[in-house]
Amino acid sequence: MPSVETSLIAETQSATFPTLALDCGVRLRDVSVAYGTYGTLNTARSNAILILHALTGDAHAAGIGKESGNTGWWPSMIGPGLAFDTNRYFVICSNVLGGCRGTTGPGSIDPTTGQRYAMRFPVITIADMVRLQKMLIDHLGINRLLAVSGGSMGGMQALEWAVAYPESVAASIPIAATCHHSAQQIAFNEVGRQAIMADPDWNEGNFYDGKPPARGLAVARMIGHITYMSDASMREKFGRRLRDKEAFGFDFSVDFEVESYLRYRGSQFVNRFDANSYLYITKAMDYFDLSSGHPSLAAAFDRARARFLVLSFTSDWLYPTYQSLEMVNALQSSNLDVEFHELSSNYGHDAFLIETDEQSAVVTNFLDRVFGAL
Amino acid sequence: MPSVETSLIAETQSATFPTLALDCGVRLRDVSVAYGTYGTLNTARSNAILILHALTGDAHAAGIGKESGNTGWWPSMIGPGLAFDTNRYFVICSNVLGGCRGTTGPGSIDPTTGQRYAMRFPVITIADMVRLQKMLIDHLGINRLLAVSGGSMGGMQALEWAVAYPESVAASIPIAATCHHSAQQIAFNEVGRQAIMADPDWNEGNFYDGKPPARGLAVARMIGHITYMSDASMREKFGRRLRDKEAFGFDFSVDFEVESYLRYRGSQFVNRFDANSYLYITKAMDYFDLSSGHPSLAAAFDRARARFLVLSFTSDWLYPTYQSLEMVNALQSSNLDVEFHELSSNYGHDAFLIETDEQSAVVTNFLDRVFGAL
Repeated sequence: MPSVETSLIAETQSATFPTLALDCGVRLRDVSVAYGTYGTLNTARSNAILILHALTGDAHAAGIGKESGNTGWWPSMIGPGLAFDTNRYFVICSNVLGGCRGTTGPGSIDPTTGQRYAMRFPVITIADMVRLQKMLIDHLGINRLLAVSGGSMGGMQALEWAVAYPESVAASIPIAATCHHSAQQIAFNEVGRQAIMADPDWNEGNFYDGKPPARGLAVARMIGHITYMSDASMREKFGRRLRDKEAFGFDFSVDFEVESYLRYRGSQFVNRFDANSYLYITKAMDYFDLSSGHPSLAAAFDRARARFLVLSFTSDWLYPTYQSLEMVNALQSSNLDVEFHELSSNYGHDAFLIETDEQSAVVTNFLDRVFGAL
Repeated sequence: MPSVETSLIAETQSATFPTLALDCGVRLRDVSVAYGTYGTLNTARSNAILILHALTGDAHAAGIGKESGNTGWWPSMIGPGLAFDTNRYFVICSNVLGGCRGTTGPGSIDPTTGQRYAMRFPVITIADMVRLQKMLIDHLGINRLLAVSGGSMGGMQALEWAVAYPESVAASIPIAATCHHSAQQIAFNEVGRQAIMADPDWNEGNFYDGKPPARGLAVARMIGHITYMSDASMREKFGRRLRDKEAFGFDFSVDFEVESYLRYRGSQFVNRFDANSYLYITKAMDYFDLSSGHPSLAAAFDRARARFLVLSFTSDWLYPTYQSLEMVNALQSSNLDVEFHELSSNYGHDAFLIETDEQSAVVTNFLDRVFGAL
């Protein structure tokens, strides 16, 4: 496994644009986007890779945060000598529209009212997120990205990029992703949303001056965590191990380690995530349907010009391999250059964050070929 | 598919016992158990089958409720000419201990205080549920059951019966069950419990004089429903179909049919289920571990004398086939007579309630052989 690079220093920057046109028809004003960059843009401006984060990620993808001291969310994939090699490539990662980590979202101040948007924030889509990313890339003076890549919702954005801005993307690497959510994926997101909205502290989204809906958001996060792991990885990590309690000392606090883990992860989440962002972003994922407005998924890809590397993981039951295969078949029907690997892993959907060996090798080789062919 | 029998009239009866010793050491006083019977006990008292319900079931397993007019929860399996043939067998089904459908549970009055137990109800186990069922069977004058059978938690009880009362069971038919919950199964139950306990209306369990924790219980039920269905059955039933709304007329009410279904099922659940029962019964499921106190699972079965029919379903990802196979292997290691079938179905864990054809045939033949061999 490549070591996690710790010499890289991450600093989140920000760009602001006067207006952003959304799919819903609203024009959002004074839109800020938080982003981080790693490595150096070459003089030909041909080595830029845009990394796209999943539901709860942020701009801090790699390196050690200058202020926080924390590592980024994909440290084993981005850095000197790693798959997204910062000695060779200029890596950019921005926080998504609707987020709560520096980019405009429901927790931001609406310039027209001077109040936070809360649930008055307009409905957003994956395409809206990508439109803002395109403005950022233009702002950075980059005409064409060497690659766009991300896992989960990041993979949806990688697909949207290739279709929406075909001339601006040489390669797209969607990982553990889908062209549209299944009923089951929508259902899991919906239960998370219901848990948040059931919390009286949510207060129709107006919680910014009071307590956040910590209990509801924790339940949503717990559901998320179960779906990100696999049956096997949970068994390996927790089994049926009991917390340090006497037999029949049990009650409704905590008996099993898995309960303790979920409660802890759920309760921590509220410190770093806005419940309204959770609502808006999960809805954007559920609305995403690349084939919408086209006679077929293959037809949706007709505009695309990128080369594709599609990855899935054997134990990922939330974004199962059949969804990646649907994508691959449509790409092939559209005569696009596509390479597909189902990588072996027990880690479930989390595998794209954890399984570095094979994923690194495949991404390294693919980028090498794409960069060499420019 | 055998037709659902509607000529059978179901009437819930009740038996009360002065005391019930629980695994936790508490002796519960004045314990009532609600039960229904279908068919006629023969003079040899050798044709009795005990049907064991799952988490949210009740004593009304079959026929039309005399007062409610509703059908039971397993109408396609129990009735004249069906797998559990009421022309031939005397079928009994009782509501579990800790439940809220006539059997003593957290919503019952504690005779020592005159108040409802609420969260002062003692911790219960699957073995406690079975101990109460044994008292009922004794009360009905039945020394030995022809068979015990149930799906999901009912299957756990069917296993416990065979081990706890080996002389009282000729055959055990656990369906879509397990000898112990996995970390993932515990995790899903735990999120449901957290959702309930996060609802301020739960009020530490003291909601009987006020509003029940409807929102928390609804979220718990929604999570349950997702895990009871399969990815494929949800796709078939809902796909990505939108509710009757304009494009971009979406908001945080309901967009997709699957959301509408889950919300409806969640909101209805509170009318028929006690949130505290949900907490106690899911904990009993999580605690269940047949191998506990034995060197191996096979050793746990050493006491058993029954013949076993074990069934699982291909698309059941909540109680996957490997759990039934673990059971089958242990039964075989213990030299017990066991027949196993993995039945083909797209319906996920719900299959045991829905897939009647193959299940009926297998159960009919098995019971026929067991009854013939008495």
